[in-house]
Amino acid sequence: MRNLTLLTDFYELTMMQAYHQTELTTGRKQIAVFDMFYRENPSGNGYVIVAGLAQLIDYINEIEFNEEDITYLRSTGVFKEEFLKYLRGFKFTGTLFAVPEGTVIFPGEPIIRVTAPLLEGQLIETALLNIINHQSLIATKASRVCWAAKGDRVLEFGLRRAQGPDAGLYGARAAMIGGCAGTSNVLAGQLFDVPIRGTHAHSWIMSFDTEIEAFRRYAELYPTACILLVDTYDTLKSGVPNAITVFTEMKNRGITLQNYGIRLDSGDLAYLSKQARLKLDAAGFTDAFISASNDLDEYVISELKAQGAQVSVWGVGTHLITSKEYPALGGVYKMAALSTDNNQWIPKMKLSEDPIKVTNPAAKKIFRLYGKESGKMKADLITLQDEKIDITQDLTIFDPLATWKQMTLKAGEYTARELLEPVFIDGKCVYPNYTVSEICEYSKKERDTLWDEHKRLVRPQIMPIDLSQKLYDLKQSMIKSLRDG
Amino acid sequence: MRNLTLLTDFYELTMMQAYHQTELTTGRKQIAVFDMFYRENPSGNGYVIVAGLAQLIDYINEIEFNEEDITYLRSTGVFKEEFLKYLRGFKFTGTLFAVPEGTVIFPGEPIIRVTAPLLEGQLIETALLNIINHQSLIATKASRVCWAAKGDRVLEFGLRRAQGPDAGLYGARAAMIGGCAGTSNVLAGQLFDVPIRGTHAHSWIMSFDTEIEAFRRYAELYPTACILLVDTYDTLKSGVPNAITVFTEMKNRGITLQNYGIRLDSGDLAYLSKQARLKLDAAGFTDAFISASNDLDEYVISELKAQGAQVSVWGVGTHLITSKEYPALGGVYKMAALSTDNNQWIPKMKLSEDPIKVTNPAAKKIFRLYGKESGKMKADLITLQDEKIDITQDLTIFDPLATWKQMTLKAGEYTARELLEPVFIDGKCVYPNYTVSEICEYSKKERDTLWDEHKRLVRPQIMPIDLSQKLYDLKQSMIKSLRDG
Repeated sequence: MRNLTLLTDFYELTMMQAYHQTELTTGRKQIAVFDMFYRENPSGNGYVIVAGLAQLIDYINEIEFNEEDITYLRSTGVFKEEFLKYLRGFKFTGTLFAVPEGTVIFPGEPIIRVTAPLLEGQLIETALLNIINHQSLIATKASRVCWAAKGDRVLEFGLRRAQGPDAGLYGARAAMIGGCAGTSNVLAGQLFDVPIRGTHAHSWIMSFDTEIEAFRRYAELYPTACILLVDTYDTLKSGVPNAITVFTEMKNRGITLQNYGIRLDSGDLAYLSKQARLKLDAAGFTDAFISASNDLDEYVISELKAQGAQVSVWGVGTHLITSKEYPALGGVYKMAALSTDNNQWIPKMKLSEDPIKVTNPAAKKIFRLYGKESGKMKADLITLQDEKIDITQDLTIFDPLATWKQMTLKAGEYTARELLEPVFIDGKCVYPNYTVSEICEYSKKERDTLWDEHKRLVRPQIMPIDLSQKLYDLKQSMIKSLRDG
Repeated sequence: MRNLTLLTDFYELTMMQAYHQTELTTGRKQIAVFDMFYRENPSGNGYVIVAGLAQLIDYINEIEFNEEDITYLRSTGVFKEEFLKYLRGFKFTGTLFAVPEGTVIFPGEPIIRVTAPLLEGQLIETALLNIINHQSLIATKASRVCWAAKGDRVLEFGLRRAQGPDAGLYGARAAMIGGCAGTSNVLAGQLFDVPIRGTHAHSWIMSFDTEIEAFRRYAELYPTACILLVDTYDTLKSGVPNAITVFTEMKNRGITLQNYGIRLDSGDLAYLSKQARLKLDAAGFTDAFISASNDLDEYVISELKAQGAQVSVWGVGTHLITSKEYPALGGVYKMAALSTDNNQWIPKMKLSEDPIKVTNPAAKKIFRLYGKESGKMKADLITLQDEKIDITQDLTIFDPLATWKQMTLKAGEYTARELLEPVFIDGKCVYPNYTVSEICEYSKKERDTLWDEHKRLVRPQIMPIDLSQKLYDLKQSMIKSLRDG
């Protein structure tokens, strides 16, 4: 694996040295709680799918300032030898809780909570944000595209347009978590044991004198996975008739046709797919499938399906792998509490003129509340870390920005579940090594806990994300004292 | 380094096996010419800055199907042992020409030309596009942001919002090539020997009881790089006065203040920077610089400068590192010629209903034409590979889509330069290992060959990119015969 230890913003290191100097001179050893959360759902979506935790775990486990790193840092002239010595022995010793990969999450909720010596919590900020922001963004985009495809298979085809090798690789991983059925990315297939898909490009067709020659040769070599690209010359006049000729020849040679069909990669996909379906059906190839690609996104797929497009497999590239209309999840990492003498926690918050930018103080957890009968999610409640929910009692919750909006969950009619799970305890990883396929299955169930109203592509119903009375009161009193001070 | 050999679309491998089978059964060994080019400038820009060649070279040099890769491919059930054996011995033996990194380039021009056995040319397609598309996109975005900053320093601060670790790392590299003066990304600093920048975050301020304590401590530790973040509580009422107090204390202690100033990270940056400038100047700190960050892009920077913002360093994050408004350069890789018997080249092209999507056939090269006196670029001429330009003669060129638009360059008044340079010859890398700093310098000169009209952020003047008469004629005759056939 690569050494990503220096994949951090320079200011994390200058701050670390400053904290370190303070420790050396004053003996003051600060422990901090940091929350990672985001403020706005991407693409106007109703939720985010969390992804990237496995890579974050790898990153933290592998942090090691080797001699090359130390030599480089020394060469900047900014760092003292005593700090470089500290880095040489650096290990993450903190505690980290996280929402499991594949979980549905909402703005303002702590996706990750780090409790660690201030220096350590600071070092991991940048890579943590980079990894979780990226994969959660792509998983969320994939869930939108798959939602639009309404049960049709969606394949991730974006590697060539991804923002570098990792964006292709981990983007493919995230796309699977978000609901894709496969990827064209062979390395992703190898590393994450996910299905890889693909047949041939226009260059295959162009390397033969005629299209039918190219089709025949391909069918000969891949009789059990024969998907023919039909748009190199003329889809309906040449491509589809040639494909039908070749399928007929295969049938006549006694080959049992299965997992076969055509791919459309240009032109009007609604019209062409309907015409192609008629021709294939008329020739008796009713089980031939039609796959489509070409600059697709969730909106185009929705529209094409609304117009009766006869497509059952959608290959989605650029829009999915870059989350093109919203290419960055703005996750942040904010200090929530600080302990200077190791015993007493001082809650911390950042004020802002914009209410949505005021952070929630103190170490917190999230309870997810479900309707007992429907199994569907009703709301999330963010509480202080020591709070409990007694589901044998009614529970009244309220909107923290519009406190008159209240909801009472009746005892016996709801269930509650804590979302944050331990990942590192005192530097030791305690989290299971889930396969991507397990995460995919879990994420599918997670999305099934949402009503369709929350999954709508445009203007979805907003899920209530409330604060407990205790957390709300703490926040109000801190706002008051910060404002007065 | 990581093994990126399998960083490819699955269909490259299925096509390769098909070509390989054909070679084995018929003895037919095809050589192909592929062009990499793009069709549309990102963000409505007037040009693209090419970047990523060094990483492409590394990728090609390091291609190696190791035993794990072979085992994985075998497990898919798609590949025959004879093909896996071929892969085990795979080396790129082709010839690759490319436009140097940092060069200004335009739509439709071959940025890279690969001449290689068809199998080899096919394998490298995906990674080649991934690497060049990504870095060229970010270099181009950076050049826009730097253009907007009109000589002010621009720092790349986007790692936490980049699409994965590579997007942060290679994005930082590309941003430097596009004109940035530094990056926050420490790993980029280490690997590419580029300046790294950064001081402290809000968490630094929040870890102290008061802002001024935090400033004092920072100034004590970093007296020669003292940039104070002034917006944690209240920029003008608290941050700037506290910063002035600390600068004054430093001066009184006999410290020579240099490379010091403040950073604004929220609020109205025009208003706040002007007010902060007045306060700093009034206190005698006329050389303190003001840096600004917070969701900046080229448009915001232009507007802020137009309103007299007193900012001399711009920290740009999300918008730069993701090229947010246009997050994918649509580079493609198309077959331009094919030789089946190793002697005769058959030009290849792809027709399309959209004129911009019709490719240019045959192996080609690019001549860049400059005004001799101004040194500024006048046009590019794409020609067949064996054509020459005699600059002692007048040269008349014409727009290939609007052939009545002509321009005659007078002998003695223009110079010509070939853009494509050899990178691999018969599999051997012959390209110099330029440092990023050399590429940056070259790219700056490249951008200086453009008139300001071509660099405008919105609706820039379009550079003429013409075809030679021979190439034009070949293309027309092929269009005719493809249409008739």
